[in-house]
Amino acid sequence: MLSIAELQQLISDALVQRNFPKTPTTLYDPIHYFLHIGGKRLRPVLTLLATQLFEAPVNDSIPAALAIETFHNFTLLHDDIMDEAPLRRGRETVHQKWNVNTAILSGDALLIIAYQLLAESNPAYLPQILTTFNKMAQEVCEGQQLDMDFENSMHVSESEYVHMIRLKTSVLLGAALKIGAILGGATPSDQQLIYTFGVNMGIAFQLQDDILDVYGDPLKFGKQVGGDIIENKKTYLLINALRLAPSAVAKDIHHWMHLTVFNPEEKVDAITAIYNTLGIKEQAEATKNRFAQEAYAALDQINLPREKKQNLIQFADDLLIRES
Amino acid sequence: MLSIAELQQLISDALVQRNFPKTPTTLYDPIHYFLHIGGKRLRPVLTLLATQLFEAPVNDSIPAALAIETFHNFTLLHDDIMDEAPLRRGRETVHQKWNVNTAILSGDALLIIAYQLLAESNPAYLPQILTTFNKMAQEVCEGQQLDMDFENSMHVSESEYVHMIRLKTSVLLGAALKIGAILGGATPSDQQLIYTFGVNMGIAFQLQDDILDVYGDPLKFGKQVGGDIIENKKTYLLINALRLAPSAVAKDIHHWMHLTVFNPEEKVDAITAIYNTLGIKEQAEATKNRFAQEAYAALDQINLPREKKQNLIQFADDLLIRES
Repeated sequence: MLSIAELQQLISDALVQRNFPKTPTTLYDPIHYFLHIGGKRLRPVLTLLATQLFEAPVNDSIPAALAIETFHNFTLLHDDIMDEAPLRRGRETVHQKWNVNTAILSGDALLIIAYQLLAESNPAYLPQILTTFNKMAQEVCEGQQLDMDFENSMHVSESEYVHMIRLKTSVLLGAALKIGAILGGATPSDQQLIYTFGVNMGIAFQLQDDILDVYGDPLKFGKQVGGDIIENKKTYLLINALRLAPSAVAKDIHHWMHLTVFNPEEKVDAITAIYNTLGIKEQAEATKNRFAQEAYAALDQINLPREKKQNLIQFADDLLIRES
Repeated sequence: MLSIAELQQLISDALVQRNFPKTPTTLYDPIHYFLHIGGKRLRPVLTLLATQLFEAPVNDSIPAALAIETFHNFTLLHDDIMDEAPLRRGRETVHQKWNVNTAILSGDALLIIAYQLLAESNPAYLPQILTTFNKMAQEVCEGQQLDMDFENSMHVSESEYVHMIRLKTSVLLGAALKIGAILGGATPSDQQLIYTFGVNMGIAFQLQDDILDVYGDPLKFGKQVGGDIIENKKTYLLINALRLAPSAVAKDIHHWMHLTVFNPEEKVDAITAIYNTLGIKEQAEATKNRFAQEAYAALDQINLPREKKQNLIQFADDLLIRES
């Protein structure tokens, strides 16, 4: 059984060895650049972990795992245009380094490459894999749209928020695992269980992200603490603060949200103080733990000895108690 | 055997009856709008014609045919952003009616919907269809990139131009036919022949487009005659004029190309006069006919009675002697 680190290496090597097309360079240079500016390759590792769980050779799942990673990078590339983000992993984004047209078209090509990789999988499993992948891909687009819609809405409920992150972030983890399980020969019921594990882990992961943005250790977090607060991002924390705050406090939050000129540190401190008073961190952690438990419960139901699941449990633990 | 008009109706009906998703409306409204602003549905009809040629039921090919049409619309939607086009078929483009972010994401979703439709095809043929579709999709992206690259280059050769239109326009016609043939149970050699027919027909079709832009009857053309000349578009005509013109005439062409303020009618007249002197129209028509003949020759080689091919011959004839 290969460790998570060994599987990560396998993915990195496969990505480097892969002969992606080269010309026209104006189309493919941005793709090569973007695929190699880093990232932990967590999602493709999930695919391999799932295949390994069902005792099938991980090598057969490498193209599908790379399809998952390529798809993920496609979404990042296009999201960066939509968010007008100048940086990704500390490096220039594609639309910034080249231009928007290049970023649109390279993103399109990256999505098509994902399907090419997927098509290299065992033909016997192809219809199932393709259906799983397509459903996920569509939901990720819907999640991105909802995320953009929420920017212009002051009335996002907790359940609407969870629905959005389920689509935008979590179904990709679920599908990465399910595709690995299909290729591993898992039964439909085990495929569903591992998907449920992935989706719930994904929601808990995103909630952890929301918490870290405010409560992360500045020395370990790697990003500016309070970035979401500065940008008025509708996180789980903000949505619940707006829901729970007495009207005077809610007014205070709105005041900060509407200021166009402000001292960022002051805004972060003020909103964090409100979160503290309302017990928002504890509430977010409780919700996160609820989804984490649902994830572990689904994994538990897969009828295999617990030691075989150790890698996946480790993976989820790392994701959910991380500090950056 | 269904006629071209009957197959067109079949596609239109299937597109209307199809339950595309509805929410989030911010994502799907633009897709519904764009899919229904018209178009002659020529490409999906090719898929059905190919299936019918090999005597298989066309109904089995409808999802794949819709995938071809949906893919075509995806490319138009994203190309319109890149070209900053305000209108498509006389109606507002998506990025114009909504905004660029909506157009990017709706286009992405449209491409994914194309794959969902494709995945509904007979699983026995799915690996082959998917491979054909993926190769085509990648090539279309490459063609669009080359087209954009050519905008900034004064040195595009005739063969580079033909390579570009082969990728951008023609392989989609070839793949539409090949996928229909695969689903119709055609032999690999017949699949290849019908693909060759489609690609060469596509190149001839694009050359006819280039000719019509300058020599079309204003009453029948439906677009502004000379639009390509006004925009300095590197068409087959312009490329060959630059290649064949004596240096004084070439200087004259460059003079018109570099003017930022000019009377459009005067520019169209001047460049058209140069084309006439150089015999560019005749040359373009000779090249067009050469590709058309290659197309018909490939079709001819398919070992089926000629009357079965009548629909496809009719289709190509209509495409290549059209006036709009």
